[in-house]
Amino acid sequence: MYLTELKKIQTFIFDVDGVFTDGSVFVNDNGDLLRTMNIRDGYATKKAVRSGLQIIVITGGNSRGVVTRLNRLGVEKVFTGVQDKIAVLDELIDSGVVDLSTTAYMGDDMPDLKIMSKVAFKCCPSDAIPEIIEIADYVSSNHGGRGCVRDVLEKWLKLNEKWGA
Amino acid sequence: MYLTELKKIQTFIFDVDGVFTDGSVFVNDNGDLLRTMNIRDGYATKKAVRSGLQIIVITGGNSRGVVTRLNRLGVEKVFTGVQDKIAVLDELIDSGVVDLSTTAYMGDDMPDLKIMSKVAFKCCPSDAIPEIIEIADYVSSNHGGRGCVRDVLEKWLKLNEKWGA
Amino acid sequence: MYLTELKKIQTFIFDVDGVFTDGSVFVNDNGDLLRTMNIRDGYATKKAVRSGLQIIVITGGNSRGVVTRLNRLGVEKVFTGVQDKIAVLDELIDSGVVDLSTTAYMGDDMPDLKIMSKVAFKCCPSDAIPEIIEIADYVSSNHGGRGCVRDVLEKWLKLNEKWGA
Amino acid sequence: MYLTELKKIQTFIFDVDGVFTDGSVFVNDNGDLLRTMNIRDGYATKKAVRSGLQIIVITGGNSRGVVTRLNRLGVEKVFTGVQDKIAVLDELIDSGVVDLSTTAYMGDDMPDLKIMSKVAFKCCPSDAIPEIIEIADYVSSNHGGRGCVRDVLEKWLKLNEKWGA
Repeated sequence: MYLTELKKIQTFIFDVDGVFTDGSVFVNDNGDLLRTMNIRDGYATKKAVRSGLQIIVITGGNSRGVVTRLNRLGVEKVFTGVQDKIAVLDELIDSGVVDLSTTAYMGDDMPDLKIMSKVAFKCCPSDAIPEIIEIADYVSSNHGGRGCVRDVLEKWLKLNEKWGA
Repeated sequence: MYLTELKKIQTFIFDVDGVFTDGSVFVNDNGDLLRTMNIRDGYATKKAVRSGLQIIVITGGNSRGVVTRLNRLGVEKVFTGVQDKIAVLDELIDSGVVDLSTTAYMGDDMPDLKIMSKVAFKCCPSDAIPEIIEIADYVSSNHGGRGCVRDVLEKWLKLNEKWGA
Repeated sequence: MYLTELKKIQTFIFDVDGVFTDGSVFVNDNGDLLRTMNIRDGYATKKAVRSGLQIIVITGGNSRGVVTRLNRLGVEKVFTGVQDKIAVLDELIDSGVVDLSTTAYMGDDMPDLKIMSKVAFKCCPSDAIPEIIEIADYVSSNHGGRGCVRDVLEKWLKLNEKWGA
Repeated sequence: MYLTELKKIQTFIFDVDGVFTDGSVFVNDNGDLLRTMNIRDGYATKKAVRSGLQIIVITGGNSRGVVTRLNRLGVEKVFTGVQDKIAVLDELIDSGVVDLSTTAYMGDDMPDLKIMSKVAFKCCPSDAIPEIIEIADYVSSNHGGRGCVRDVLEKWLKLNEKWGA
């Protein structure tokens, strides 16, 4: 039963594009990519961090604004411009920050496939690619950028009786 | 009958994110959150204010642009960065600005739950969270940012025979 | 038959919000409202102007960018910040710019209702308000900002055998 | 069988608006048109270029940001502000850059019609105009800006056994 697994999670790792966003990026005149995020995801993220969940973000993208936004929500460990997500994960394990047996991952596309296969709880938005959906323990009914982060964090908070707090 | 209640409303309090917007926020390079609003909501807001309805906005977010926009529509009381909406409501009651028996509230998410339970008329967009929908006297058929504000204000204006004016 | 009427049109007046756009406005830090337009609408607008159709835009909104964009497409008469669309129309009639018997109008909301009732050919996007849809000679199957302008201009161009040209 | 044809393609030419984007353009205060692109399209573009596919972009629009973005993905030949796409194609053929018998094109609107009719493999997003859909060898099930580029490039990569690499 996936809820039993989710309840035990102590670290939640998230991808950004297609998870915290809908996969669209706004291209400004310099070619920088700006993102649109979701307020309800933000509410749950803040609440989960305050409730003791360790949230880590690992993304291939570079967006100063997204980092600032996540920091303000209480997410301190934000890795951007990452080419090899497994390498980042390995460092986090080696330094004792992450214990795979209590770690969850939410991703949506190919660069998430290998790292996702390592963690205890694998989840994704409803519009993830087929390869990701196939290995997921839980597929949210929400799309990326439309509440998939909120969905899993709200579930974790409720399972740990910290939603109403 | 909810229309009888709505007709008597003299003060309408609105949340911003998920009500005047669809809950998406555009993150700029500084991590500031910029919003997309709806022209038809704006039309009804302006008309309702001119017709004597007191409109108040209370939001957890901070957006200078949203405040300016609302001010231009005639909404003078805009409270931003609010952590505790009940505290703001209590001050408004104490200072005689708000009379709960003729006050309505439209919200969509957890931070709206308590304040909404206090007012005479509770309403929400169709994509509000289940907890909000459960206590609502009226659920608009429109989503947040897609005309839910217009819907309730147009109804109020028509009930008070001020829509065609 | 509405196509017979459309073919004879020599002047096409358009609203902006909800017609050239989907009714959403992006609010920047100053409270200015920025718009999203549609490339296919732009293609047809440019082609129609070059084919001899007089296109006029009358909007309640103020957007320097929209004016510049429309000018570049060949639309020279763009009236912004208009409170009373009928007054602008009357001036255009008095100065001989517009002949109502060969004029069409596309609008979507209350401020379009009176001016629309004056012209020879009335049309609207599929998501116009019920009051507008009720008086329309033709309701496009496209939403505002999603090709409703393209739809009517392409039809006009085809009827006048100028689409393939 | 269209997959046999697609496998042999060595050059893929793309339109921008309605293909890499959903056809919407954000109009800033200067009337400049800014675009929203898709991260998954970007992933496949980068991978295809690295796998030896020549990708060329020809667009009627002007967007410095889009050019920078495409360059960063490895697309070096980006032609913007193009009035006559056939003229650009002819130059590419004359200079030996493009061999029509192994060239594909993805477009969505009238300015793509003639150039598309020349190439060996014609494809389009699901929301292309009827004239384009009629001549397409393959219609992606994805809309413009919502993964149609990803779809055809992923198929090409898989056919050439370079997707997992």
